[in-house]
Amino acid sequence: MSKQAMAELKQLMNEVTLIGSTAAVLGWDERVYMPRNGSAHRANQLAYLSGLRHEKFTAPVVGKLLEQVEGTALVKDPISADAVNIREIRRAYDKATKVPKKLVEEIAHTETVAQNAWVEARKKNDFKSFLPHLEKMIGLKIKYAEAVGYDEVIYDALLDDYEPGASTKSVTAVFKEFREELVPFVKKILNAPKKPDVSILEREYPVDRQRIFGEAVAAAIGFPFSDGRLDVTVHPFCTGIGPGDCRITTRYNVRHVNEALFGTMHESGHALYELGLPREHYGMPMGDAVSLGIHESQSRMWENMVGRSKPFWKHFYALAQGTFHEALADVKLDDFYFAVNDVRASYIRVEADEVTYNLHIMVRFELEQGIISGEIKPKDIPAAWNEKFTSYFGITPKTDREGCLQDVHWAAGLFGYFPTYALGNLYSAQFFAKAKQDIPDLDEQFEAGKFDALLGWLRKNIHSQGQRYRSEDLVKVVTGKKLSHKPLMAYLEKKFKPLYGVK
Amino acid sequence: MSKQAMAELKQLMNEVTLIGSTAAVLGWDERVYMPRNGSAHRANQLAYLSGLRHEKFTAPVVGKLLEQVEGTALVKDPISADAVNIREIRRAYDKATKVPKKLVEEIAHTETVAQNAWVEARKKNDFKSFLPHLEKMIGLKIKYAEAVGYDEVIYDALLDDYEPGASTKSVTAVFKEFREELVPFVKKILNAPKKPDVSILEREYPVDRQRIFGEAVAAAIGFPFSDGRLDVTVHPFCTGIGPGDCRITTRYNVRHVNEALFGTMHESGHALYELGLPREHYGMPMGDAVSLGIHESQSRMWENMVGRSKPFWKHFYALAQGTFHEALADVKLDDFYFAVNDVRASYIRVEADEVTYNLHIMVRFELEQGIISGEIKPKDIPAAWNEKFTSYFGITPKTDREGCLQDVHWAAGLFGYFPTYALGNLYSAQFFAKAKQDIPDLDEQFEAGKFDALLGWLRKNIHSQGQRYRSEDLVKVVTGKKLSHKPLMAYLEKKFKPLYGVK
Repeated sequence: MSKQAMAELKQLMNEVTLIGSTAAVLGWDERVYMPRNGSAHRANQLAYLSGLRHEKFTAPVVGKLLEQVEGTALVKDPISADAVNIREIRRAYDKATKVPKKLVEEIAHTETVAQNAWVEARKKNDFKSFLPHLEKMIGLKIKYAEAVGYDEVIYDALLDDYEPGASTKSVTAVFKEFREELVPFVKKILNAPKKPDVSILEREYPVDRQRIFGEAVAAAIGFPFSDGRLDVTVHPFCTGIGPGDCRITTRYNVRHVNEALFGTMHESGHALYELGLPREHYGMPMGDAVSLGIHESQSRMWENMVGRSKPFWKHFYALAQGTFHEALADVKLDDFYFAVNDVRASYIRVEADEVTYNLHIMVRFELEQGIISGEIKPKDIPAAWNEKFTSYFGITPKTDREGCLQDVHWAAGLFGYFPTYALGNLYSAQFFAKAKQDIPDLDEQFEAGKFDALLGWLRKNIHSQGQRYRSEDLVKVVTGKKLSHKPLMAYLEKKFKPLYGVK
Repeated sequence: MSKQAMAELKQLMNEVTLIGSTAAVLGWDERVYMPRNGSAHRANQLAYLSGLRHEKFTAPVVGKLLEQVEGTALVKDPISADAVNIREIRRAYDKATKVPKKLVEEIAHTETVAQNAWVEARKKNDFKSFLPHLEKMIGLKIKYAEAVGYDEVIYDALLDDYEPGASTKSVTAVFKEFREELVPFVKKILNAPKKPDVSILEREYPVDRQRIFGEAVAAAIGFPFSDGRLDVTVHPFCTGIGPGDCRITTRYNVRHVNEALFGTMHESGHALYELGLPREHYGMPMGDAVSLGIHESQSRMWENMVGRSKPFWKHFYALAQGTFHEALADVKLDDFYFAVNDVRASYIRVEADEVTYNLHIMVRFELEQGIISGEIKPKDIPAAWNEKFTSYFGITPKTDREGCLQDVHWAAGLFGYFPTYALGNLYSAQFFAKAKQDIPDLDEQFEAGKFDALLGWLRKNIHSQGQRYRSEDLVKVVTGKKLSHKPLMAYLEKKFKPLYGVK
């Protein structure tokens, strides 16, 4: 009886997944190759698929089937595939059915309008023109959070969309301890007399050779071009279509080698996670990624802990010099390595280095809580932003464009999304420390151009788990300890103290 | 009441169209950019969409709504948009609901298996290994035709899938008259002592420059790159995604300039038709193409009547010589023009010139009728093919690979499809003769690189009509006469007699 219900539930979820993965192909195509005038029709296609998916997923039969499997022998072992699937389908089903369809549509509509308004406002540095849209979106997201419900504070409901099970309280606690060590550490580095010569990264790096180098690096770390593609878009992204098909994009800047190089490694990290999910569970939570934070831990690890490491460049620098001969022939490995690890106080999050990046997130995390709780009025966001930013960075944005207008997230209604970036950094350091413990010669392997041991470790410990554990538990299961700022702080200190000659 | 039903019917058809156009994106992606290992998942996605589309289209509610609008004031004017939509939805609905789902699935399954068997059989020139699959497919298609029903002969039911309303009898009549003049004409040309030097087309034509030249020509004849793309695939095709989005592909052969050049013009012709359909009727038959034959008339006109014409090359030859300087610097326009109009008896349809091409189709059309009526047993196809081929071409295929194994169509169950290729040639000549009558200086316009008057004429007379008329009627409405072989015969004689110096 319950087995039959479970089989039916799987069948329905498989349908929902196929619709979602179809939309993923259309979304990829829209951003990569769609002709310009196809956009109106594409919006119709995607709106239809999104409605169809919602209709299938929130059908009362799903609720009935869940009731038939919950509390049965299927969930006896809470980390068995069936139990995990039931747990996570229930979570998503409750969320999806609690929100009135009208509210979903209103958010979707406001999202489109507000994003367009944001583009204009950012261009003209005109927060006031964006304010009514932001106010509307905040109001809607508060309604959404109320509809979904929460245990402690209202922001929990939003955070949970991107980091299931995480609470404002626990994230705040980790961020606070982290910040208390990070802020003085950042100051030390910024005051260090030693500075890298970053101009060497801004020499001429021909795009066609960047492409060859980037694809070589992606292939070397394990991105399988039989199961994916690398294309060019204005905003780089990774999209998993389904088993055997995960695609990444990048953008090339002829006068800045970093963007495509580390961007490609970052997106490759996301793709390796997607492609490493257990195929036998495709279509069910057991075959899906845990959270945005865990996803980001994978991209960040390959981008920073691998791609910006000395052992990595010991292996790849000769190839880089050969590929970018005009730019790098006279540059020493140590100078290149220092340059790609430049740390500086900057206003723009997406351009931030791996040390200061986390402070950018903390600014947003704290503001978002105030915005959603109502303590910060939308009109007061610019002032609140600048105050908070100054206290962490010691510099004050001169314009809102450099401040609260820089990111699209709020216009898109993505409150609760930002913290997952810093959580990703924290997870990545804690996982990487454990991986190094389990594979003691990891540095030597990187120096030899071998990355399969690390990838194998990630596959075994993280990718193959699907959603068996929520992020908090996954960290504990994999590393034996709950999430802490210490591994990331230790990693940053070990790497950047000698680079900058600080103690 | 009937207006309300009509609105509901439109809503349902719109859904069906969106599902179909979503599958079109996935199909395009599969053939153009999908990573190799994505194919199993893609098959699942497409099977799901195909089932969903069928389910929505054959739902009893569609039949009920049709009954509510048929015989009402909506169909009073039989060529009004509503009447046309009702007529064509009824036709498709009856066909779709008459065929048992099991038979549809069996055909789909056999298609996949038989196509794989065909690939192998063709490679090894082994008809026997293909025979059981072909027998099965023929049996299924006969069952299909019986299920669908027909007025006169069983082959009508299949022909009607691709050329709605056409009958075996009427097509046979036109082909017969055509053949009686074409066969002796072909003989005359083949016996002419004058022959073009086709080796000039087999010099080196760098692929990157072919691409630039091909895109320039496509843009010049009106293919809008804002509403489409040109990509590379093994088998060139055109796919309409929806309003503002129609994509074509080609393939480049560095040692044969014809393939990409005329192939691009051919696919552009298909795309111009798709993009010229009336947008306000998108999703309904009034916004859709008439038939495969009418579609082919558009591709053939741009490929042959424009692309292989002297006025076209008077305009484009200087650009061709500049683009392919090494290949064409010493070649005179007249010699190039003669070479691209080479006529020869050949075994392979897809390589045939515009004169003999029609005979290739007639061979297939006659064999198909015998196969479906049961007069020709599947095992006797090779002998029947060779006999028929010899009688039309005067040469006999030495292998089945050059004979009945050359095309994929029968393996794919596409009986009734071939005649639309020759019908397309016939329509194109009859339309083109009328266009020349309406626009007397068409040649001068081509010489000046202007193609908008022809495109405008096609849009007004053909594209914008959607499915208002079935093909037979469309020809009458546009040209004032029923379909005849005379315009095509006259066109061929006027063009090829002076080229080959025959009378």
